[in-house]
Amino acid sequence: MTSSVANGGTEVTRLWTGDYYNEGNGSKESIFDIVKEECGVFGVFGHPDAANLSYYGLHALQHRGEESCGICTSDDGTFHYHRGMGLVKEVFDRDRLESLKGKQAIGHVRYSTSGSSHLGNAQPLVFKYRGGDLAVCTNGNLVNEPIIRKELEESGSIFQTTSDTEVIAHLIARSSKDLVEAVKDAFLRLIGGFAFLIQTKDYLIAACDPQGLRPMVMGRLGEAYIFSSESCALETIGAEFVRDVQPGELLVLDKDGLREDRFAPMERRAMCSMEYIYFARPDSDIYGANLHSTRKRMGQILAQESFVDADIVTGVPDSSISAAIGYAEQTGIPYELGLIKNKYTGRTFIQPSQELREKGVKMKLSAVRKVVEGKRVVMIDDSIVRGTTSLRIVNMLREAGALEVHVRITSPPFMNPCYYGIDTPNPADLIASSKSVEEIRQAINADSLYFLTERGLRDAVGIYPDEYANGLCMACFNNDYPTPVRFEDAKLTSCSCD
Amino acid sequence: MTSSVANGGTEVTRLWTGDYYNEGNGSKESIFDIVKEECGVFGVFGHPDAANLSYYGLHALQHRGEESCGICTSDDGTFHYHRGMGLVKEVFDRDRLESLKGKQAIGHVRYSTSGSSHLGNAQPLVFKYRGGDLAVCTNGNLVNEPIIRKELEESGSIFQTTSDTEVIAHLIARSSKDLVEAVKDAFLRLIGGFAFLIQTKDYLIAACDPQGLRPMVMGRLGEAYIFSSESCALETIGAEFVRDVQPGELLVLDKDGLREDRFAPMERRAMCSMEYIYFARPDSDIYGANLHSTRKRMGQILAQESFVDADIVTGVPDSSISAAIGYAEQTGIPYELGLIKNKYTGRTFIQPSQELREKGVKMKLSAVRKVVEGKRVVMIDDSIVRGTTSLRIVNMLREAGALEVHVRITSPPFMNPCYYGIDTPNPADLIASSKSVEEIRQAINADSLYFLTERGLRDAVGIYPDEYANGLCMACFNNDYPTPVRFEDAKLTSCSCD
Amino acid sequence: MTSSVANGGTEVTRLWTGDYYNEGNGSKESIFDIVKEECGVFGVFGHPDAANLSYYGLHALQHRGEESCGICTSDDGTFHYHRGMGLVKEVFDRDRLESLKGKQAIGHVRYSTSGSSHLGNAQPLVFKYRGGDLAVCTNGNLVNEPIIRKELEESGSIFQTTSDTEVIAHLIARSSKDLVEAVKDAFLRLIGGFAFLIQTKDYLIAACDPQGLRPMVMGRLGEAYIFSSESCALETIGAEFVRDVQPGELLVLDKDGLREDRFAPMERRAMCSMEYIYFARPDSDIYGANLHSTRKRMGQILAQESFVDADIVTGVPDSSISAAIGYAEQTGIPYELGLIKNKYTGRTFIQPSQELREKGVKMKLSAVRKVVEGKRVVMIDDSIVRGTTSLRIVNMLREAGALEVHVRITSPPFMNPCYYGIDTPNPADLIASSKSVEEIRQAINADSLYFLTERGLRDAVGIYPDEYANGLCMACFNNDYPTPVRFEDAKLTSCSCD
Amino acid sequence: MTSSVANGGTEVTRLWTGDYYNEGNGSKESIFDIVKEECGVFGVFGHPDAANLSYYGLHALQHRGEESCGICTSDDGTFHYHRGMGLVKEVFDRDRLESLKGKQAIGHVRYSTSGSSHLGNAQPLVFKYRGGDLAVCTNGNLVNEPIIRKELEESGSIFQTTSDTEVIAHLIARSSKDLVEAVKDAFLRLIGGFAFLIQTKDYLIAACDPQGLRPMVMGRLGEAYIFSSESCALETIGAEFVRDVQPGELLVLDKDGLREDRFAPMERRAMCSMEYIYFARPDSDIYGANLHSTRKRMGQILAQESFVDADIVTGVPDSSISAAIGYAEQTGIPYELGLIKNKYTGRTFIQPSQELREKGVKMKLSAVRKVVEGKRVVMIDDSIVRGTTSLRIVNMLREAGALEVHVRITSPPFMNPCYYGIDTPNPADLIASSKSVEEIRQAINADSLYFLTERGLRDAVGIYPDEYANGLCMACFNNDYPTPVRFEDAKLTSCSCD
Repeated sequence: MTSSVANGGTEVTRLWTGDYYNEGNGSKESIFDIVKEECGVFGVFGHPDAANLSYYGLHALQHRGEESCGICTSDDGTFHYHRGMGLVKEVFDRDRLESLKGKQAIGHVRYSTSGSSHLGNAQPLVFKYRGGDLAVCTNGNLVNEPIIRKELEESGSIFQTTSDTEVIAHLIARSSKDLVEAVKDAFLRLIGGFAFLIQTKDYLIAACDPQGLRPMVMGRLGEAYIFSSESCALETIGAEFVRDVQPGELLVLDKDGLREDRFAPMERRAMCSMEYIYFARPDSDIYGANLHSTRKRMGQILAQESFVDADIVTGVPDSSISAAIGYAEQTGIPYELGLIKNKYTGRTFIQPSQELREKGVKMKLSAVRKVVEGKRVVMIDDSIVRGTTSLRIVNMLREAGALEVHVRITSPPFMNPCYYGIDTPNPADLIASSKSVEEIRQAINADSLYFLTERGLRDAVGIYPDEYANGLCMACFNNDYPTPVRFEDAKLTSCSCD
Repeated sequence: MTSSVANGGTEVTRLWTGDYYNEGNGSKESIFDIVKEECGVFGVFGHPDAANLSYYGLHALQHRGEESCGICTSDDGTFHYHRGMGLVKEVFDRDRLESLKGKQAIGHVRYSTSGSSHLGNAQPLVFKYRGGDLAVCTNGNLVNEPIIRKELEESGSIFQTTSDTEVIAHLIARSSKDLVEAVKDAFLRLIGGFAFLIQTKDYLIAACDPQGLRPMVMGRLGEAYIFSSESCALETIGAEFVRDVQPGELLVLDKDGLREDRFAPMERRAMCSMEYIYFARPDSDIYGANLHSTRKRMGQILAQESFVDADIVTGVPDSSISAAIGYAEQTGIPYELGLIKNKYTGRTFIQPSQELREKGVKMKLSAVRKVVEGKRVVMIDDSIVRGTTSLRIVNMLREAGALEVHVRITSPPFMNPCYYGIDTPNPADLIASSKSVEEIRQAINADSLYFLTERGLRDAVGIYPDEYANGLCMACFNNDYPTPVRFEDAKLTSCSCD
Repeated sequence: MTSSVANGGTEVTRLWTGDYYNEGNGSKESIFDIVKEECGVFGVFGHPDAANLSYYGLHALQHRGEESCGICTSDDGTFHYHRGMGLVKEVFDRDRLESLKGKQAIGHVRYSTSGSSHLGNAQPLVFKYRGGDLAVCTNGNLVNEPIIRKELEESGSIFQTTSDTEVIAHLIARSSKDLVEAVKDAFLRLIGGFAFLIQTKDYLIAACDPQGLRPMVMGRLGEAYIFSSESCALETIGAEFVRDVQPGELLVLDKDGLREDRFAPMERRAMCSMEYIYFARPDSDIYGANLHSTRKRMGQILAQESFVDADIVTGVPDSSISAAIGYAEQTGIPYELGLIKNKYTGRTFIQPSQELREKGVKMKLSAVRKVVEGKRVVMIDDSIVRGTTSLRIVNMLREAGALEVHVRITSPPFMNPCYYGIDTPNPADLIASSKSVEEIRQAINADSLYFLTERGLRDAVGIYPDEYANGLCMACFNNDYPTPVRFEDAKLTSCSCD
Repeated sequence: MTSSVANGGTEVTRLWTGDYYNEGNGSKESIFDIVKEECGVFGVFGHPDAANLSYYGLHALQHRGEESCGICTSDDGTFHYHRGMGLVKEVFDRDRLESLKGKQAIGHVRYSTSGSSHLGNAQPLVFKYRGGDLAVCTNGNLVNEPIIRKELEESGSIFQTTSDTEVIAHLIARSSKDLVEAVKDAFLRLIGGFAFLIQTKDYLIAACDPQGLRPMVMGRLGEAYIFSSESCALETIGAEFVRDVQPGELLVLDKDGLREDRFAPMERRAMCSMEYIYFARPDSDIYGANLHSTRKRMGQILAQESFVDADIVTGVPDSSISAAIGYAEQTGIPYELGLIKNKYTGRTFIQPSQELREKGVKMKLSAVRKVVEGKRVVMIDDSIVRGTTSLRIVNMLREAGALEVHVRITSPPFMNPCYYGIDTPNPADLIASSKSVEEIRQAINADSLYFLTERGLRDAVGIYPDEYANGLCMACFNNDYPTPVRFEDAKLTSCSCD
């Protein structure tokens, strides 16, 4: 199938994606050079406006997935759902929302993680099984999905998507136990990072993987319960934050209210550090830490670790603004808007041809000449993936007249692929996997380059190892994966893509 | 689910549909009063233009289903597919067609058979199973689909559509035999009327039910094999007609060419008489009989059975034109265009409000005043379902000045529901199930009314019972269903809708 | 401008169009070989449902123009309008219609008459002028439009469209008289064939050219007045036919009701014969003659003029069905459905590649093998323009097994361009302008060929020359143009395209 | 017409707009409470990629108008154009751009300035006149447009739009002089603020009003000349900034290159201060001043004028970020992200119902609880129009836990309507026109409130009155309009809306 997942090989191979904004014009690498989050989930239990709240909630989570989205409600057991390609505001209109009746809903926003993007992969997926209707959506990635999928196929299962979500539904349906027990059994089979929402006529179930790799929070809105990948969506709908869903937890809502259960003990808490560095919205909190404040601290610690004398500090928008302000505050060097992003750039935008780009046509970022001309610039960014984007931005600043460009990165060097739901390039393309810091500095044409240390990152986040948790998954920096990711059996080593 | 299928009850209940052209304006019955075909299938094996040929083939079968369509090709085992809501010409553009590479294809056009129409129900459905990729599409209806579905659910299967097609895929995937044997085993489980096309990386398989209730023909285009619900699509693509697919046959195409196999003996040939009367295009042939000529004979026999002295003969367009010409030829009464249909009316047309309709605004049919004024009119139609449309047309002729309106129907009274893929109203709404011919005449305000006899119909079609076959399924007229349709177990008696 | 009109040359040059269904696939000629009507107009005065009635009225006139359409209402002097590319059912939805408030409306359907089709050319055009708002729409063509346009430009006018309609609006606005007198003065300047509807806050005005080349009828619906290019639209909305608008008439509706006025004496009545032969719907009447009946008479007279012994008569759908029935009735040869048209073919349909067409893929017409095989066929068509389509159809019949194909045309040979609103090919491409009937017969591969005589045509239509009228414009056959069409000044001889 | 412009009355009446994002849900005021820029223009002369450059240039100017856009190219005198409703990236695709051939182009982005928005008002407008093709686009507003329009109508002109642009085209076409002189004559008639681009087959002409109220800059890209409303678009396409177009200048480009001409002496330079405060992008420069730096200075001066002891400074995104950083730098109070905007909110977004909003559902702005909780907050905003938005934001901060909210505004109180192209509410609705600062403070629920002084604004911008110029138009603050805006004749005092 066009959307098939490559299998086989004795090495872990990771699918990665071209950018679907950018077909056939040869300028792939420039957009490619980012790390993409794959999904966001949102759920409502017990509110008459469940679909509307999901619409606003998913809208607040839109940055976690722009490709497709969907909402499935349960109206006293009758399911209504709608999914489509595009942004939340594009997929839903008033009529659609009104047709999604019921007090219970789960919703999803999704990034493309394979070259072609199918409506068929939009979530929530909705199934009929012995127990009636079943809707499932997820954020994350299962490391052992191919093994389970193969087992299921061997015993006669058929698959209509390439999604982890369908695998879970099969596992649940195959169990002869009641739903909650079936879900627990199913989840025990899973290795990876995930946050799940499951809806049946009687239940809404929320769960996170035993390492807590992917975030999910619970809130209340009056009597209703709300679940969301990030807390910003709670604020958006006026809900009160209650707590983070814990690793291995299984929260079950039914007519008797909330039951706090577990499908697994917490093994080792390991929240994705990329959520702190890059993905989550600055107005979200994870485990009590606000993301803007955390990133500002990253900038401050970066300044302590690697001060450089300069005239201005500028951040690469949007993700590095907070850190740049922190760096500026710490050093006393003025923070300036040296780089500006065109907010209208988006999916359907026509990328400039290679020829036009060489002639200076900018895609979505430009340097502000009047601000940087004749200045020594500290440029704060969150990460260097392939290095091509960094090179472009440094050169953009130089062409706008910057005398010096000192690059400060709010994360350690990115060297290893993610297996838990972050879409990363082919490991061979990660510049830090083969080059020293000095070599990277040369490659990106910077006057100096410094990466935040793991310790600095941990201090900024404020999460430290304890009995159960080392707090952060930094595998992409230090190769310390909190779950098994490579298996004996060659067939089992490939990693499906969502 | 919004698209859920009503289950339960001790009586056979049949889902029927409102017309999706016609939302919320209170004028349902007028469009409702027709019988709708549910699907058309088309397949190509061994032609480099497989997708293009499917496009033109499905376009020729468009009358069999206007709601959604799809094509799945196999390019040396890699599947490519596209499905969408709307007409073939709306769903596919040049780019889409070009992306559907490969020498092998199956395609489908589909009618809505439930109130809400989901893209998810568009076919071909494409699955991954142990054997690789599997694409399936079907025309028809399985009487025992709920039983099989329930069994499958009990043993852990999940369903994403309400389609018979998904049930078949499950049966195939559950078998441990090789594909062809698995398909045979699966088909042996099925009761109903169906024409199937199945595609894997190695095979294209075509099959019809053991009673041959739904039509399918095979053709050749150079070295390639073509399958189609109707022969008109062969003519459209310039292919040569080879033969009708026989009841219970299983035609298997692979690298070794065509293998003519069977999954069941022919039990009793029983081609759907509605295909002859109404559905199939006049330029199609079924079992050697051209549909235009057959309908013309219906008109001639009707004239022999029930001559009436009149000034003009007119047919209700488009389906009754041929019969009207036959009636006119037989009687010598001139054939005239007394009724005309607006060819631009279609899905997105806004139906006139009740108020406007009462004031005389016509939807899509109008009487031609200059033709019918002061005339005694014989009006030929193919069937009377609820009677409301007939009443409207008769009145339209009277308002245009017809002195007398004599209604002649080219089929016997329609009294029983169809279980084999024709979408019929609730049996209680079939006017002939509760009223005598004289009562119907009064109800439709005709001066006289006559229905073609079963014998006349059989004579027109030219198919007579023999050892294996009574030739025609006329169950909707005479209650003689060629398969079991009612079962002991109350749960099993309901009939799913495709 | 892309939509510019070619000017200059000492000979009348006529713009002609490629077919916009058919871009860039080399199969132009096949669709090109038809003659296209350019527009239809519809107006309502004094009905609360003016916009809705216009919607249904324009829908009934859709065959007169599929490219764009529009409606402009007046709500006690406030104008509301909407125009768009596409069919009436595509351009308007419920919300659009509801926003078009008011008891007065004029509407328009339009064909493309230049290679590129602009929304800007969609009608009604709406202007602000000294007198307030002014909406205008027209069917037809002004021979002297370039002269007037040039004069207007010389005195400082600017034009935003290439439409005749804008020229008229300028003429009206330039007059210092009151509106009705200004319109009369303006119309006196015009040479050509046209039917106009003009709306201001006080008036709705309808007018036809002094030769009555283009049809328009008036009807009543209760107290309201209705105008329409064809009477079929009156029947569609349940309105009563009152009479044809006469050549040179100016019908003025205002708060005092209907005033029957004239802007010119009737010079010579010359209704377009192509309306009778081809364009108008069979359920329309023009000057009292029903079109279906008229065409049937054409077939009958054709049979009298040129009987041929054959097995079946078939008509090229849709326009020649009536004539074929007439030919069959007259000769006793059975009428059969030897050719069938795919009713779903339309604007967005992908034309088959030259390669596929050579392999036999049909576009929209196919021969019915079972009907024509082994038969001597009389094929009735309405005209031969370039001859390419006729050749294709004759060959299609032969390939389907016809033994002989005798072509009978319901019009005289088409030899001269139209200046009055019918879109015709370059005169050099009209096969009859350079070939004898025998040469045409050979070119289209027919066994025999006969064209209806002018006298036969006149007899069928039943309109004969009298004091004021020769009844029919047959200039395209006999070069007898009812108005001047060629002028001394070379610059003035070109003819704009609408 | 639906898009009609209200006329008459002895007082200046100003049309203002509802927000078209926001139909029928009763939440008008919240979005209404902003001041909107009306347009941006962009031109290219002498570059083979003229259309592509215009695409990227207009994209960079998108913030100046999101409603519709268009590009008109000249390909050796043949005009090609495309206009549409929506963002640049929505209106143009690759095919459209490729069809816009030629080395010369003018383009436009436009805001809606009346309740209903018509494609007909999209620019550039393209005309045919005596001299051939003429394309015109403009940013700004003509105060005396109604007078000129009336004169033109009196002498027979017709109008198809409500745009100033059409008035200019009429004036040019009416002149018997050559184009450049005709344009000069026309411009001498105009009173108001405007930046024009005019294209004919021979010329591209750029001009600004004699007061220089609206900005336009000239740049070079190789041999080509570029014009743009803002300099940011030059940077985007890699062009070099040359200079600002001066008040009263007329820059003419033809085959002989650039001619620097004037249609009027510079009367009194009066650049719109709102461009500095709010509209122009922070990376644009006007008269040598970078907008980010200027706004930062506004914040610094504001801090000097009105220091307040607080814990954090936050800006209302996006326009007040720079000023907030300036305020923070000046005071040493940390700058924090206390308010965050959802970047995905846009035209098609469904606004929350009143009920949901009362329950706390945020539209597009939210306060960051973790950042503001327990803090004394300085909130920087650019202006207070009606006060409703300010009230909402202050309350949002309080609900998120802010202890004190001190509002600092980077402009003087907004008290008078703009006649030069800024869309402002009904003067009666400007809160500062009827309330004192203390009353406004209470109305917006702030702990303290301070508006930047005129002198502070002037110091920040760095433009001071001189012989020819007072540098800034601050009429909306101080009622000192740089042109006449009220006329004797009551009929003449109303101001058209673009």
